[in-house]
Amino acid sequence: MAKNKKKLKVIPLGGIQEIGKNITVFEYGEDIIVVDCGMTFPDDEMLGIDLVIPDVSYLIKNREKIRGIVLTHGHEDHIGALPYVLKEINVPVYGTKLTLGLLKNKLEEHELLSSVKLETVKHGDTVELGVFRVEFIRSNHSIADTSALAIYTPVGIVVHTGDFKIDYTPIEGEPMDLARLAELGRKGVLLLMSDSTNVEHEGYTMSERTVGSTFDEIFMKATGRILVATFASNVHRIQQIINAAVKFNRKVAMCGRSMINVCNVAMELGYMNVPEGVLVDIDNIGKYNPEHLVIITTGTQGEPMSALSRIAASEHKKVEIIPGDLVIISASSIPGNERLISRVINELFKKGADVIYEALADIHVSGHACKEELKLIQKLVQPKFFMPVHGEYRHLKQHGNLARQLGKSPDEIFIMENGKVLELTADSAKINGSVTAGNVLVDGLGIGDVGNIVLRDRKHLSQDGLIVVVITFASETGSVIAGPDIISRGFVYVRESEDLMDEMKEVAKAALQKCEEKKKNDWASKKSVIKETLRDFIYEKTKRKPMILPIIMEV
Amino acid sequence: MAKNKKKLKVIPLGGIQEIGKNITVFEYGEDIIVVDCGMTFPDDEMLGIDLVIPDVSYLIKNREKIRGIVLTHGHEDHIGALPYVLKEINVPVYGTKLTLGLLKNKLEEHELLSSVKLETVKHGDTVELGVFRVEFIRSNHSIADTSALAIYTPVGIVVHTGDFKIDYTPIEGEPMDLARLAELGRKGVLLLMSDSTNVEHEGYTMSERTVGSTFDEIFMKATGRILVATFASNVHRIQQIINAAVKFNRKVAMCGRSMINVCNVAMELGYMNVPEGVLVDIDNIGKYNPEHLVIITTGTQGEPMSALSRIAASEHKKVEIIPGDLVIISASSIPGNERLISRVINELFKKGADVIYEALADIHVSGHACKEELKLIQKLVQPKFFMPVHGEYRHLKQHGNLARQLGKSPDEIFIMENGKVLELTADSAKINGSVTAGNVLVDGLGIGDVGNIVLRDRKHLSQDGLIVVVITFASETGSVIAGPDIISRGFVYVRESEDLMDEMKEVAKAALQKCEEKKKNDWASKKSVIKETLRDFIYEKTKRKPMILPIIMEV
Repeated sequence: MAKNKKKLKVIPLGGIQEIGKNITVFEYGEDIIVVDCGMTFPDDEMLGIDLVIPDVSYLIKNREKIRGIVLTHGHEDHIGALPYVLKEINVPVYGTKLTLGLLKNKLEEHELLSSVKLETVKHGDTVELGVFRVEFIRSNHSIADTSALAIYTPVGIVVHTGDFKIDYTPIEGEPMDLARLAELGRKGVLLLMSDSTNVEHEGYTMSERTVGSTFDEIFMKATGRILVATFASNVHRIQQIINAAVKFNRKVAMCGRSMINVCNVAMELGYMNVPEGVLVDIDNIGKYNPEHLVIITTGTQGEPMSALSRIAASEHKKVEIIPGDLVIISASSIPGNERLISRVINELFKKGADVIYEALADIHVSGHACKEELKLIQKLVQPKFFMPVHGEYRHLKQHGNLARQLGKSPDEIFIMENGKVLELTADSAKINGSVTAGNVLVDGLGIGDVGNIVLRDRKHLSQDGLIVVVITFASETGSVIAGPDIISRGFVYVRESEDLMDEMKEVAKAALQKCEEKKKNDWASKKSVIKETLRDFIYEKTKRKPMILPIIMEV
Repeated sequence: MAKNKKKLKVIPLGGIQEIGKNITVFEYGEDIIVVDCGMTFPDDEMLGIDLVIPDVSYLIKNREKIRGIVLTHGHEDHIGALPYVLKEINVPVYGTKLTLGLLKNKLEEHELLSSVKLETVKHGDTVELGVFRVEFIRSNHSIADTSALAIYTPVGIVVHTGDFKIDYTPIEGEPMDLARLAELGRKGVLLLMSDSTNVEHEGYTMSERTVGSTFDEIFMKATGRILVATFASNVHRIQQIINAAVKFNRKVAMCGRSMINVCNVAMELGYMNVPEGVLVDIDNIGKYNPEHLVIITTGTQGEPMSALSRIAASEHKKVEIIPGDLVIISASSIPGNERLISRVINELFKKGADVIYEALADIHVSGHACKEELKLIQKLVQPKFFMPVHGEYRHLKQHGNLARQLGKSPDEIFIMENGKVLELTADSAKINGSVTAGNVLVDGLGIGDVGNIVLRDRKHLSQDGLIVVVITFASETGSVIAGPDIISRGFVYVRESEDLMDEMKEVAKAALQKCEEKKKNDWASKKSVIKETLRDFIYEKTKRKPMILPIIMEV
C-alpha cells in the first residue's frame, strides 16, 4: 500500500541549462542511483578558477541510499567530477571498459584507485541497483564504448540517451542499437531524457568515417611532416589518423600528456589498433624524414599550456615547426575559445606551416545527433514524457519544440533546472520542489572555498587594479605618525603618474582631517571616509574605479 | 634628379595581422596622407581596457608633412581613433557624406567638432593632397557610402579596396564601380591593397537584399511584437527592417543610444527612407498592439550594457520582454563574443520570447568579399604588386596564396607587419625598415598610461587575488611594533579560512626572524624574504599564487 504511494524522483544536479557538468539523480523510496558525474570549465566571470563541479550536498545528505553511479561514457563532462565526489560518497561505479579505463587514470592521480569499486559492464548487460535495474545500450559518440541507458524503475522505464549520435558506419563496432530502443518503445517507456546539444542543426550528423576520407586526401598530397591536433579522448579519430599514416607510409608520434595517457589506455584495452612499428617515441622524431612522419597532438582549443600552443609559440621541448609542416586541427571550436585558437593558427602560419582547420576542410564531425536523429529517437522510444537534457536553455527549449512538433503536448514536456525534482508515477509526471544544486569551484587545492565575494573581488581587481592606503596612528594620542602612503598595482604606470600619487596622499590626508573635524575617530569611519573620498577623486581624475583598500595600523 | 630617387612609402600603422584599428600611411618626399584611422576592441589579455587605438608617434613626428586623412567608410575600425589622433595632428579629413556625418557625432562628443576641417566628397571625386591625388570609387559594404580609393602617386597608382563586397543588387545606389577598377587596371596599377577578412570563405557573399526576403517571410508569420537587433551602422539593414515593417503594417521604435544617433544622421542625410508616421518614440510603444510594432535595437554581440542585453535581463527601463515576442538577432558573432550572445539568447527564451539567430535562419550576410570576389578584383585591377590588408596573419597569408594561384610570384606579394615600410618605385617594391607602431590602450580618461606592467598585475590579481602584509617597525630600535597583519582580497573566503590567515602571520613573523638572524635588515631584503616565504607557503597549502604585497611602515 505504502509502496504504491512512492514516486520516482528524477533530479538533475547538473547539465541542465548549461553545457557540461552532467549528473542526474534517480530516487525511489530508499534507493538512489546517479547517472554520470561530470565537470565543466569556468565561464568568463569565474576568474582564476580551474574547473567547476556539481554541488552534491543532496547526495551527501542521502549517502546511505546511493546504490551506485552509472556512467554513459568517458568524457570529462560525464566523469570529471568523480575524483572529488567519490571522496564524499564512496559507492560502486559502473561503466564500459574504456569508460572505466579513463576513470582509473583519474582516480590514480587522486590516489583513490584502491578505495573505489569499479564494475565493468558490456553493452546489453543489466545491473541491479536496489529497486533499479540499469541496462547499457550500445550507442555512438565521439568517444568509443558509449552507452545509452534503460533504467527500469518500479513506475516504468526511463531511457537516457547520454551523449549520442547515430553513426551507421562507425569506425569500430556497430551503430547505436536502434532495434533495442524500438523494442523498449513497444514495451512502453515512461520518460525519455535526450541529448539536446545539436538540436539547432538540421539533418543528420555525418559519420565519423567521412573524416577518414578527408585525411586520406590530405595525407596523399602532403609532402612534409603532418601534425594533427584532436581531442585525446576521440579514439576513433586517432585510429583514422593512424590508418591514414599507415596507408601513406608514415610513422606516428604522440604528443601531449593526455594524448599519451588516453592512447595507452585505449591500446591496452583493445580500442585502438596500431600495427607493429608504426608508433615512434616523440624523442626520436628527428630520425625520420618529414614525409614519413605524423605527430598527433592535443591542443585543438588553443589552450595556452597545451602541446599545440607550445609548439606554435616555439616553446615545446620536443617539437618545433619547420617550414613545410602541415598542421590539421581536427576539431571545432568550443564557444569562447575562438580567439585562442585563432592565435595558435596565426602563429603556426607565421612559423611557415600550412594549417587546415574546420573553416577550410571537412576534418571534423560532431559527436552529437542533429534534428532528424533526435526525431528518430523520439519516435522509436515513444515515451510518455520527455525531458530534453545536455544543453543551454535555448537548446532544451528547441528540443521541447521538436517534441511538440512530433505530437507531445506541453504538459508532457519538462524543461528542467538543476536541482528541480521531477516526480513520476506510472501515468503522471510533475515538477515538485527542488534540492540544493549549483556550482562548486575548484581553484588549486581548494574545493568550494572560492565563492561570489572572492570572484567579485577578482573581477574588480582585474578591471582597474588596486590602491592601498596605509596609515599608522599613535594609539595614545590618536594622531597620524606615518603615512598616508599609497601603493598601487594594476592601476596606472606609477613612474609616469607620480603627481597623481602625490595628489592621492593629499586627498587621503584631507579625508582624515574631515573625520577629525566631524569627530568620527573610529577606524571604520576613517576607513570608509578615506575610501569614498579617494574613490570619487580617482574617478573624477581618471574615470576608473580601482579597488581601494585603506589599512590602519595603531602603535 | 633628386626627385627620381624618391620612393613611395606605404606604411600600415594598424590593421595588419589583426582585425580592426585600420590605418595606413602613404609618404612621398615631403608629403604624407593617411587612409583611415580606426580603433579596435581589447583582447582577452587587456583587462579593464576600454578600447585600443594605433600608436601614431610616426605621424606626430612628421606632423608638418601630413596633407590630410582620407576615410573609406564610417565604421569604428576605420574612424574610431580619429577623436584621439586629431587632438595630436589636426589636418583636414576627407570622406563621403555619411562617413563624415558619423564622424561629426564622435567629434562632438569629444568637443572637437569646431576645430577640425571636414571635407565631404562624392564617389567619382578626386582630391589633391600634396603630390598625391585620391579618387573615391563607389563600393559596397555593410554600411552605406563606402569607398574604394585610387591613390595617384608620382610612382604609379595604388588601389586600396577598403572594406568591400560586390553587391549587384544593393539596397540603395549602385554596385561597386567595377568598370572604373577595370579602367585603372588597363592604365596600369602599381599596388593593390585588398580586404582579406573573408578570404577563407569560398564563393560569393550574398547580396544584402537576400536578408530583406527573410525579414518579409518572418514578419509575415509573426503574430506578436518583433524586436530586431542589428549593428547601428548598417543603415541598409535597418532600411530593410523598416520596409518589412511598413509592408506588414507595423510601427517602428528605435532603442539604444547608438541606434538612435546613427539613424538620425542617416535620415537627416537622406540615407534612410522612412515613410511619415512609421517611427514612434520608444516611450510610446505601450500604445500599440504587439502585432503592430517593431523595435530595432543594438546589442547583437551580447555586450552587457547594450539595450538588448538589458532587455533580456529585465533591466531596461522602456522595453520588457512579453511572452510571444519574436527577437531576431540580425548579425553574426564576432569571435570572442559567442558566450555573451548565448547568454542573451538563453535569457530571451526564458522570458518567453522566440529567438531567431544566425544558426536558425538567413538573417545576416557579411559585408566582406569572399574568394571569388577577391579574385575578380585582382583580375580587374591587375596590379604589379599585391598587399593583402585587413586581416589576421592567416587571412593575409591565404589572400597571398590566392594571388599566387592567380599568377603572382612570391616577390610581388607583401605580407606586412604594422610599422613595416614598403618602398615602391615605378617598377620595384621591397620592405625596407620600419617605424614605431603598436597599440595605445585607452582606459577611462587615460590614453596610453596602461602598459604591460599594469596589465600583467591586473592579470595576476584576477587569477588568485591579493595578500597584503603590513608591518610597522620602530625606526630607532628596528623592532616590530605592529603586525604582521594580513589582509586578503580575491584569494579565499576569509571567514572560512581564519586558520590559514593565522598561519600566514606566523610564517611572516618567522621570515622576519630569519632576516634578523641573517642581518638582512634593510626594507628591500625584508620585503623580498617575506614575499618569497609566504609565496612558497601559500602555494604549498593551496596551489595558488596570489599577488603578495608586503608593506613596511616605520615610525
